[in-house]
Amino acid sequence: MARSKSPGNGGTKDVWTTELTSIEPNRILIRGYAIDELMGRIHFGEAIYLLLTGDLPTPSMGKLVEAMLISFIDHGATPPSTLAARNAATTGATIRGSVAAGVLAFGRHYGGDVLMCRQVLDDGLALARSGKSLSECATEIADQLIAHGDIPPPGFGHRYHTIDPRATRLLQIAHELEVDHEYTQFLRALELVLSRHPALGGRSLPINIDGAIAAVCGDIGLPPEVADTLLIISRVPGLAAHSLEEQRREPPMRAIDPRAHAYDGPSERRLGERRK
Amino acid sequence: MARSKSPGNGGTKDVWTTELTSIEPNRILIRGYAIDELMGRIHFGEAIYLLLTGDLPTPSMGKLVEAMLISFIDHGATPPSTLAARNAATTGATIRGSVAAGVLAFGRHYGGDVLMCRQVLDDGLALARSGKSLSECATEIADQLIAHGDIPPPGFGHRYHTIDPRATRLLQIAHELEVDHEYTQFLRALELVLSRHPALGGRSLPINIDGAIAAVCGDIGLPPEVADTLLIISRVPGLAAHSLEEQRREPPMRAIDPRAHAYDGPSERRLGERRK
Amino acid sequence: MARSKSPGNGGTKDVWTTELTSIEPNRILIRGYAIDELMGRIHFGEAIYLLLTGDLPTPSMGKLVEAMLISFIDHGATPPSTLAARNAATTGATIRGSVAAGVLAFGRHYGGDVLMCRQVLDDGLALARSGKSLSECATEIADQLIAHGDIPPPGFGHRYHTIDPRATRLLQIAHELEVDHEYTQFLRALELVLSRHPALGGRSLPINIDGAIAAVCGDIGLPPEVADTLLIISRVPGLAAHSLEEQRREPPMRAIDPRAHAYDGPSERRLGERRK
Amino acid sequence: MARSKSPGNGGTKDVWTTELTSIEPNRILIRGYAIDELMGRIHFGEAIYLLLTGDLPTPSMGKLVEAMLISFIDHGATPPSTLAARNAATTGATIRGSVAAGVLAFGRHYGGDVLMCRQVLDDGLALARSGKSLSECATEIADQLIAHGDIPPPGFGHRYHTIDPRATRLLQIAHELEVDHEYTQFLRALELVLSRHPALGGRSLPINIDGAIAAVCGDIGLPPEVADTLLIISRVPGLAAHSLEEQRREPPMRAIDPRAHAYDGPSERRLGERRK
Repeated sequence: MARSKSPGNGGTKDVWTTELTSIEPNRILIRGYAIDELMGRIHFGEAIYLLLTGDLPTPSMGKLVEAMLISFIDHGATPPSTLAARNAATTGATIRGSVAAGVLAFGRHYGGDVLMCRQVLDDGLALARSGKSLSECATEIADQLIAHGDIPPPGFGHRYHTIDPRATRLLQIAHELEVDHEYTQFLRALELVLSRHPALGGRSLPINIDGAIAAVCGDIGLPPEVADTLLIISRVPGLAAHSLEEQRREPPMRAIDPRAHAYDGPSERRLGERRK
Repeated sequence: MARSKSPGNGGTKDVWTTELTSIEPNRILIRGYAIDELMGRIHFGEAIYLLLTGDLPTPSMGKLVEAMLISFIDHGATPPSTLAARNAATTGATIRGSVAAGVLAFGRHYGGDVLMCRQVLDDGLALARSGKSLSECATEIADQLIAHGDIPPPGFGHRYHTIDPRATRLLQIAHELEVDHEYTQFLRALELVLSRHPALGGRSLPINIDGAIAAVCGDIGLPPEVADTLLIISRVPGLAAHSLEEQRREPPMRAIDPRAHAYDGPSERRLGERRK
Repeated sequence: MARSKSPGNGGTKDVWTTELTSIEPNRILIRGYAIDELMGRIHFGEAIYLLLTGDLPTPSMGKLVEAMLISFIDHGATPPSTLAARNAATTGATIRGSVAAGVLAFGRHYGGDVLMCRQVLDDGLALARSGKSLSECATEIADQLIAHGDIPPPGFGHRYHTIDPRATRLLQIAHELEVDHEYTQFLRALELVLSRHPALGGRSLPINIDGAIAAVCGDIGLPPEVADTLLIISRVPGLAAHSLEEQRREPPMRAIDPRAHAYDGPSERRLGERRK
Repeated sequence: MARSKSPGNGGTKDVWTTELTSIEPNRILIRGYAIDELMGRIHFGEAIYLLLTGDLPTPSMGKLVEAMLISFIDHGATPPSTLAARNAATTGATIRGSVAAGVLAFGRHYGGDVLMCRQVLDDGLALARSGKSLSECATEIADQLIAHGDIPPPGFGHRYHTIDPRATRLLQIAHELEVDHEYTQFLRALELVLSRHPALGGRSLPINIDGAIAAVCGDIGLPPEVADTLLIISRVPGLAAHSLEEQRREPPMRAIDPRAHAYDGPSERRLGERRK
């Protein structure tokens, strides 16, 4: 290591450190693993987990993280982030500039549910540690959310979907892999309480993908800010694909009406048997 | 599908279309595949390929694309994009804002080699179609690059590495999977010509990762702008990891000296046998 | 104005409204004023005030707002926002992409003092409305800040300056223009209390430019988020100038050390007599 | 000034320099002027010119630059950059993140005319130096543009306006200030040739604001990239005002239709006599 502390300046000139990646001539280690050994032997989703957490996931964990990353990869033309990216792309801006514009259109109201739902779950589980049942705690938390006007609560309900197929599938995978622990259990307890709560009058508030991601990340021990970061990483391919499509298929400088669009891709098709 | 007009509004109100993702209540199709069927059955890298190209990769192609995505996932603390992200993160900006700042620090001189090298390869292969040998064409292209002062040529040479381990490994995987066709062959022919070119006096200009990505993407039929986009997607996890590490480990508002840093992560370790 | 529905589409198609700028063929009104009438007759800083607040400033107010905008226009090479912009520019990214990267490097710890100091001032003035003297309120607020570990408090102290010349001058201009009212008075009362506070042991915590902007904006009736926005607008020219200079004077892809730089511009010079 | 080496470190540690702003404790010089002397004595637009060019503008030049900055300050709700900013703001993103998203939505097709028109003017003036009349050169350039399909040519025509009131006024101010030299003359010569060109069949292609800015900046000696940068600086207040308005007046997560909006601000009003 070249620069140690330069003595004569009162220690103000520290060497700072990173534990992510070591770069030496002709040798790159990601969290200790040679990058050329990782290439071809692990999956990209596993490499993301390794980089963010410091360790390779177990095969189960890896499968779960990849399912999570896929679950949020794109949501069509209507999210504001997609429209921000397309509005940049239509001016002839670069794809990277368009992607960055899209990343900037995640805020408290879009994507923010992952962090906020995690907080709700942490609050509920803190209550549960005092000896109450999950169901009692869920009722208490639901009452608080309703009293604060937080309806729909973070992690529940969706603008388009009455049942979010991504949430259902993610929770199913977590169950199959036996990693659905207290966060998932509390999320389900809260869903049940909400579905019966007199103040909501039978309004349907199913678990959405943000809620499922918040709970699953809690159960596999990812800090909230890592879960939030996974969400952004997962959507970047979608933002890029929309930016490319905008520049390929549409005239420049068009007025992009988020309500006047249709889908003209392939009809529904099934994965072949070979995929598993 | 032709773009239909929505009837009754005088034709001013075209419906525009997307072929990426279909959103209906409770049903999300990515390029025709139900997202909940993809989750748990394909890998994130394969989903990225599907979204960008319209089709699932073959297993070989999928393996190659995942290796490519991993090859560029991070390059330590020194790239300007990483420093842009860290300079945002040190002010207490959001992780997403920091990631966006990092994405904006890819330009002609960083990341730009993928597009420029692809152009060189396309020029060389166009020449080759006139009947000359790859070696003759490579000599002609090398002479042109040297005459224009484009030294190192895009796709060759590296600030740190005399042999880029990522490029070596990516080309090896492409070879094993038997997808190394004319782009890769021309890239290798050019490397050979450069290594012996009198004007370069024995200067080492090995293929770098940008060059390897440019050639491999050419051989598997990805358009240049998709190759360029893959590069950005692949680095986003690295930018996010550095932003998170900056906020976790360092005091706010520090002066980030790109030359005064060290690595304090795990020593080199090997993948266990189970990984393949 | 209530939001009207566009007729004949079943009410699904609300018309949304803006009160900023009216665009008709060959006629552009900014807050009601023809843009071609504004051009040549008002100053850019006044136009910014008009656009953000809805009214032209009085001449005094205009002078104050322009002084504020100039006060934050640049702060040399060391702020993280400048370094983020330069790290983008060194890669050959566009000037606009570099500027955007710089804007993203304003966070809680940089630029955030304007909003946080405004909150402190609002809290203090709310106390004062209960009948206590400004000095008593300032003592109470200072005790709270110290108890919470908020030292230096938002709006006080600076990494480089023991007296911030911009803050001094801005408060002087506000005084000359007779717009220094309760916010400025409370800010000064707080500065006095801090300078004598036993817990701070004589540590110098002068009003900084963020604090002066927060107070002056409070006194002229600008909402906190407008004050915060003025700060960003004011620094954009600085970010642009650094990005241009980086690309003009420096080699691409350099390692930008924030501590190894010097100034080589003109020596101190004075405004001629004609300027007033 | 040559870049000096910091002594004693073997020359690996260049000190890099900036000529923009000098920062010493309690003393900030912008291009040599004490910032606290500039505050209250020059206008923000003049400070922008100083920072970007190195010198204070003459009063005429300052007036012209301020008129230019105002001319592009906002263009209502329809430009893609404004929509990108609003799509970020509607998610609850920060104002600075929304502004950055807007800045990223300037591309080849939006804002790009300033650089491209400048190139056309430079080409025309290079021709004129060979002895041909401006009118002959304009005809030659127009023929080239038409042959290349560059219709409308950069700097001419507008989506909304048949006469761009901003361009008309800017050129008028330049004329009054007697700074309309060869760039402006060539721009006008080209406009005349285009209006009579048989291949255009009488299509109206008036000078637009980008063209006027390109010519005026040429005549006052600003390099093309500075003119381009002024454009971005000038629009930032508009992007900020739309982001603030979006968060103040509209519900979060709305679908922003760029064709379904109306203006509900003040009716046309006139500047009072005091303004000049």
